[in-house]
Amino acid sequence: MILSQKTGLRYISLRGTALFILSIRGIIVDQINTSASKLKTQDNSQPAQDTFTQADKQGLYKTIFNRRDVRGQFLPTPIPDEVLSRVLYASHHAPSVGFMQPWDYIVIRSNEIKEKVKQDFNLAHQEAEQMFSSEKQATYKNLKLEGITESPINICITCDRERTGETVIGRTHMKEMDLYSSVCAVQNFWLAARSENLGVGWVSILHHDALRATLNLPTNIVPIAYLCVGYVSHFHQAPELETANWLPRRPLIDAIKYEQWGKENSEDSLSQQVNKDADFVKQFLK
Amino acid sequence: MILSQKTGLRYISLRGTALFILSIRGIIVDQINTSASKLKTQDNSQPAQDTFTQADKQGLYKTIFNRRDVRGQFLPTPIPDEVLSRVLYASHHAPSVGFMQPWDYIVIRSNEIKEKVKQDFNLAHQEAEQMFSSEKQATYKNLKLEGITESPINICITCDRERTGETVIGRTHMKEMDLYSSVCAVQNFWLAARSENLGVGWVSILHHDALRATLNLPTNIVPIAYLCVGYVSHFHQAPELETANWLPRRPLIDAIKYEQWGKENSEDSLSQQVNKDADFVKQFLK
Repeated sequence: MILSQKTGLRYISLRGTALFILSIRGIIVDQINTSASKLKTQDNSQPAQDTFTQADKQGLYKTIFNRRDVRGQFLPTPIPDEVLSRVLYASHHAPSVGFMQPWDYIVIRSNEIKEKVKQDFNLAHQEAEQMFSSEKQATYKNLKLEGITESPINICITCDRERTGETVIGRTHMKEMDLYSSVCAVQNFWLAARSENLGVGWVSILHHDALRATLNLPTNIVPIAYLCVGYVSHFHQAPELETANWLPRRPLIDAIKYEQWGKENSEDSLSQQVNKDADFVKQFLK
Repeated sequence: MILSQKTGLRYISLRGTALFILSIRGIIVDQINTSASKLKTQDNSQPAQDTFTQADKQGLYKTIFNRRDVRGQFLPTPIPDEVLSRVLYASHHAPSVGFMQPWDYIVIRSNEIKEKVKQDFNLAHQEAEQMFSSEKQATYKNLKLEGITESPINICITCDRERTGETVIGRTHMKEMDLYSSVCAVQNFWLAARSENLGVGWVSILHHDALRATLNLPTNIVPIAYLCVGYVSHFHQAPELETANWLPRRPLIDAIKYEQWGKENSEDSLSQQVNKDADFVKQFLK
């Protein structure tokens, strides 16, 4: 049995039957006498035991806040198979709609394939430059945006839109869910790689058709992320586009709405907590 | 000090303080006053120092492998603002194309909104049932697929397709990249929540239009993930669809190809390592 001081909400469950007893302003409404020893271990009267230590949480937050999109600092240092294998397992345990696991990993080490992708990047990059206003073009041109040939390994994470058949639980109404599952696999990959001291850069300035041709992808296989992976000389402390004053970090508070779109509420206790935690991230930055 | 000849991006580290100087076409934009003798050499011939301890890695892998899609075990136990705030910061530090940060968070606590979403789920769920073969319908009907009204908080993570203007670095050729950025924010949210002992369930059996209407979303705002969030009585050790024999876990080795689609290679040292690590995940399961 637990008691939340803030709300006075008590939640008591006996043999799987949930009973809720509201205790208002400290008046203890308590009375369940039961032979606790006979209760089954899966007692849903209180939250599952927290098996995550402070060190565990620290490891996760540290990884999330120090993850960077790496473009310019790749080293040719080989990636040991044991390291890449762990990172792939982490990716493979992403959530997937209807347990579809639609992702695959194309591991690219050959210079020939990398060069083809790089050539297409060069073309797309030139096209992209023309899309920016003249004032931004100079900055854009000087940004290093990929490490295709410098990184020892490129990996393309894909999505098989037909895996496990036509009807998939959870994808009956939102057809994009399989693509999103593969993106979750990308994010898991990225985080695990960071914790293994590996840099990852996601290259998206590519033509879909050229990438499909280079990687020989069938029509049902969608390339989700083309990743450059390798050890790096250094990690930046902040995203490069932030440091270069391309765009600022948006304050988290601006992103929080309540109940419906457009309903901000700076008075809400969550908003106040978010403001109080403005420096939360800093403690993790290396 | 290192100098990337290609990009003109200089990276100078002075007693641990990183300063980034963008030099455009060799013109140094910023001034740095420093005595060169005090500069530490950042030798890029060797990888950046590994600042992640075994405990940090353990924390990340443990979170990734114990994350579950939660449907049936939510408790009404309130989520402290301090916890939710940390989880939101983790989500907000997801990667985003062109540093676009296209996500927003609609925090839903009201029964009225939850009930509307639940009604739409019920409708979509009935429609979905008809899409399965008769043999799978019985199983489908008995699966608990959402915890909309039981979970204390629902959160819709969205994507603003127009944020930061029409032309976005990295989104010039792959227009879907903003959606994918918001999915990365979902995955970060999910992982941070798990490490905080919170369950998360992603509900996708919903009609886009109904969800848009309920949440009052403008046309440029795409709902990416509708999440049920709360403490739970217990976490399952394996995905429920796996346990229910709906689908098996795909062997990771089947997902790995080399250089191009269709080129598997069980002789590759990475493939052999992946096979050797078949039990890697088990040590983390709680």
